Amino acid sequence: MAVGWFYLSCLVLGSLGSMCILFTIYWMQYWRGGFAWDGSTYMFNWHPVLMVTGMVVFYSAASLVYRLPQSWVGPKLPWKLLHAALHLMAFILTVLGLVAVFKFHNHNKIANLYSLHSWLGITAVFLFACQWFLGFAVFLLPWAPVWLRSLLKPIHVFFGSSILSLAITSVISGINEKLFFSLKNGTNQYSHLPSEAIFANSTGVLVVVFGLLVLYILLASSWKRPEPGMLTDRQLPLQLRPGSRPFPVTYKPVAVRQPCEPW
Amino acid sequence: MAVGWFYLSCLVLGSLGSMCILFTIYWMQYWRGGFAWDGSTYMFNWHPVLMVTGMVVFYSAASLVYRLPQSWVGPKLPWKLLHAALHLMAFILTVLGLVAVFKFHNHNKIANLYSLHSWLGITAVFLFACQWFLGFAVFLLPWAPVWLRSLLKPIHVFFGSSILSLAITSVISGINEKLFFSLKNGTNQYSHLPSEAIFANSTGVLVVVFGLLVLYILLASSWKRPEPGMLTDRQLPLQLRPGSRPFPVTYKPVAVRQPCEPW
Repeated sequence: MAVGWFYLSCLVLGSLGSMCILFTIYWMQYWRGGFAWDGSTYMFNWHPVLMVTGMVVFYSAASLVYRLPQSWVGPKLPWKLLHAALHLMAFILTVLGLVAVFKFHNHNKIANLYSLHSWLGITAVFLFACQWFLGFAVFLLPWAPVWLRSLLKPIHVFFGSSILSLAITSVISGINEKLFFSLKNGTNQYSHLPSEAIFANSTGVLVVVFGLLVLYILLASSWKRPEPGMLTDRQLPLQLRPGSRPFPVTYKPVAVRQPCEPW
Repeated sequence: MAVGWFYLSCLVLGSLGSMCILFTIYWMQYWRGGFAWDGSTYMFNWHPVLMVTGMVVFYSAASLVYRLPQSWVGPKLPWKLLHAALHLMAFILTVLGLVAVFKFHNHNKIANLYSLHSWLGITAVFLFACQWFLGFAVFLLPWAPVWLRSLLKPIHVFFGSSILSLAITSVISGINEKLFFSLKNGTNQYSHLPSEAIFANSTGVLVVVFGLLVLYILLASSWKRPEPGMLTDRQLPLQLRPGSRPFPVTYKPVAVRQPCEPW
């Protein structure tokens, strides 16, 4: 039951994430004229696609690595490498997304970084960079002492979810802003809800639904790598399914968490 | 140490929440001409103030009731009543905030509910209404069977955080949208970052910081009402401080949670 629920969630998240990317590409291709890398408005069109792909979908996939039951047992290093590599890919896509909008602004003499959308977006990218380099130095390289890792782990986890929340908020305010910029003439005004507005609004709703599901899975304790000697009701069947490896010898199961009082 | 940390967090959250409300009032009063209830633009000015106060600050205060260590012991009914009453106040403020914007739109023949901001905002309010009535019927009235409460509790908790996330996203896209509407003439354009833009952007940043802290406290397991027989390192000193009452007799402490592996 728990294993089935987990893989169903993977399927739903994978489908929603793909739809977020494809819907953003379709919006830019069909209604905004497609893509180029020449400082024109077609260069701007890369910005929403790369930010949704990098800062939301790839970032989420990278963050969820430790929620795979396969990562709960055995050596942690391969999963750390996968976590860091996927986040690096997300970061590269994000930087390309920033280059697209800055080059478009500079080419057309438009001011940079004045809207609340841009303030929150650039804060998210700055925190993402700090988070990646600090995570690499402290959790991946072997030299950091245990007390430092212990101190920084909850901070790393908190900022991980916060950066994703900031990214989603930035994406939503960005879609809203773009539609007000683009749909302002004649019958094609945003307030008349033309098909582009309905499609782009729906893309925003998809991003929010995807982000809320990812944050729920990131933060719900039953999806987390079990703490030593502690399993929840959901973690237990995932650990005990056929073919799974037992805890490493440093783990000493001492109790199974009791079901919580439901009222 | 844990008790000090808890009350410091209360102080920080209270200050941040008050600042969110006061900054929004100041923005509307000083730069947007103040308040009225007559369908004019001064009526619109109630909208951001009431939404930030109701859907963000009061909603957060109501949600955090069960994170007070005093609520962890003894009968739960008084805390349920406080939780429901504070949420009802938040909901009334929210509905007044909606009335302000709908009456302003209708009076000035502006379309309702077309932007992504409004789609997400109205979804948040609709879910809030469902959440309150379902919570009242299932968790406060005494007739719901235990299996139904047990089934609905994780759904109630998930939607509680999701509605707050949606509200914050709506507030941010709303501030962004309002500044693009208001600051578009001469030297007072949003892109020139006049003092109003800096102030309102900062108000948005404050709302995000406040919301992230609230969501962290709501979701971090060490702040939650302890499950029967299970205390974390933080919950233990809060439970054992002078003057605190012990667990009710139905609680059977069987283990104290082990510190987690930090790397």
